[in-house]
Amino acid sequence: MTYTWINGNYVESAQASLGVDDLAIQRGYGVFDFFSLRRPKPSLSAEVHSQGPMATARCRQGIPFLLPWYLDRFFHSAQALNLEVPLSKSELTAVIQEFIDKNQLVDEGIKMILTGGYSPDSYTPLEPNLVISAHKINFPAKEKYEQGFKVMTHEYQRESPAAKSINYLQGIQLIPVLKARGLDDVLYHWGGVVTEFPRSNIFMVDQQHQLVTPGINVLAGITRKTVLYLAKENYSPTLRDLTVSELKQAKEVFLTSTTKGIVPVCVIDGHPVGDGVPGVVTKHLAQLLGDLAEDFSMRLEG
Amino acid sequence: MTYTWINGNYVESAQASLGVDDLAIQRGYGVFDFFSLRRPKPSLSAEVHSQGPMATARCRQGIPFLLPWYLDRFFHSAQALNLEVPLSKSELTAVIQEFIDKNQLVDEGIKMILTGGYSPDSYTPLEPNLVISAHKINFPAKEKYEQGFKVMTHEYQRESPAAKSINYLQGIQLIPVLKARGLDDVLYHWGGVVTEFPRSNIFMVDQQHQLVTPGINVLAGITRKTVLYLAKENYSPTLRDLTVSELKQAKEVFLTSTTKGIVPVCVIDGHPVGDGVPGVVTKHLAQLLGDLAEDFSMRLEG
Repeated sequence: MTYTWINGNYVESAQASLGVDDLAIQRGYGVFDFFSLRRPKPSLSAEVHSQGPMATARCRQGIPFLLPWYLDRFFHSAQALNLEVPLSKSELTAVIQEFIDKNQLVDEGIKMILTGGYSPDSYTPLEPNLVISAHKINFPAKEKYEQGFKVMTHEYQRESPAAKSINYLQGIQLIPVLKARGLDDVLYHWGGVVTEFPRSNIFMVDQQHQLVTPGINVLAGITRKTVLYLAKENYSPTLRDLTVSELKQAKEVFLTSTTKGIVPVCVIDGHPVGDGVPGVVTKHLAQLLGDLAEDFSMRLEG
Repeated sequence: MTYTWINGNYVESAQASLGVDDLAIQRGYGVFDFFSLRRPKPSLSAEVHSQGPMATARCRQGIPFLLPWYLDRFFHSAQALNLEVPLSKSELTAVIQEFIDKNQLVDEGIKMILTGGYSPDSYTPLEPNLVISAHKINFPAKEKYEQGFKVMTHEYQRESPAAKSINYLQGIQLIPVLKARGLDDVLYHWGGVVTEFPRSNIFMVDQQHQLVTPGINVLAGITRKTVLYLAKENYSPTLRDLTVSELKQAKEVFLTSTTKGIVPVCVIDGHPVGDGVPGVVTKHLAQLLGDLAEDFSMRLEG
């Protein structure tokens, strides 16, 4: 059984609810963030710490990956919607650690949702509701990493793009279209300038072997940030506008997300990207990202 | 005590809730509609029907105003978001009548919310949740009808404007700005072409005494539709694009909404509209709208 944390109280997840007056339900008003845990490798250090059943349990529990970056973004999103997170970052960090312990989480994802709260006039935010819940992460199938995503483009600009609001109206409206066409995702552009996927950022390796990702009007993805860091040494990444037609001429395209990592994008609007198979830069960065996560767990654990 | 109707069950309103897995909370995904009840006038017919306490109670209960139009729009909004209303229009009408009886409603408003429902992957809609709740209507203060609203313009285009989705991100984000400037509402435009308020439609009486309201990229308001009908005889209303600068040169401007009726707009971005006081056409149409609602109650009741 898992527990969901709501405004300071633990509730059985199956019973976790918000009153219908909440502004998320009334007006779709809220922000969220989602980070994943890394499973600690079995190692000498785990054995050293194992001094009883509780100690063992603790050592097996997952470690939040890059939590400070996710918290920074969560607080930034809240501010953009004029919502105040009812805890400080350090208080929230402590609650998250307690939440991981309470639920004995290992490699799940954790979602924090901050809504506009219960509003007497169903419009004006008053006191936000904060919900923390655990989620199994369903990674894309292995074939998707090997063969790449097939995507379509669609003109749309997310509202307040730098904030991770709960507004996914456009993305969800398009699910039946993607399904009918046998596609994996939709790539937004605005006037031909590429922005992002509903839940992922985009990268391109252009004909000059430069790694490029849009710098404005997109969510500042944490995996995007991590990839920019990892790519620094070998691929001198650039933040700039990129067009749909440029993207279709690219050598490689891939997407980044917390719940997917790096996924090659091999078909855009029916056009194969590069050779139509995952490229060398994509594969190298995916390797580096995997190594970092592993190394991160090892270091924190040891 | 009032009751809220959730998926076929009545729940005390203070306890009415949705699980946090609901797509309204997870992704702001849902549609709604809101209609008001008209209080029947005390009349001979009421006395005729008064054949005991139950009969009296029933006669005092409110009558949904223009319900078929609201239901049409609700079903249209649901379809635009690929959601299926779990009841037919006639079934929903019967539920609403039962809801009015159960809650002994007289002049309240009734809200129907249809969400994306509980979603195992927190993204894909499955089986919608339908919530019906009663709300006191807080009309603007009398002075607002006498002195008119002061508004500002803001560039924004609602997503899927013809659907009444629960997405009010932009409108709610701007509440602190309106408050700081002492304004009553924000008027959206897109590239200088006026669309609507977050929760109301706009009308203008231009220099040629023509009544104009935008015809596209706006919600098809029911009060807007009613005013277009009432204006037909005297004001030959026109649906066309109108610009912000045209609006500032207008003789009269007013807004329409279910919960406000007709409210004069007398100041736009600091510029007085016309003489800066409610105009004759605005006042005449407000009178006609009031008469219609009264006449409607009388006719249905008699």
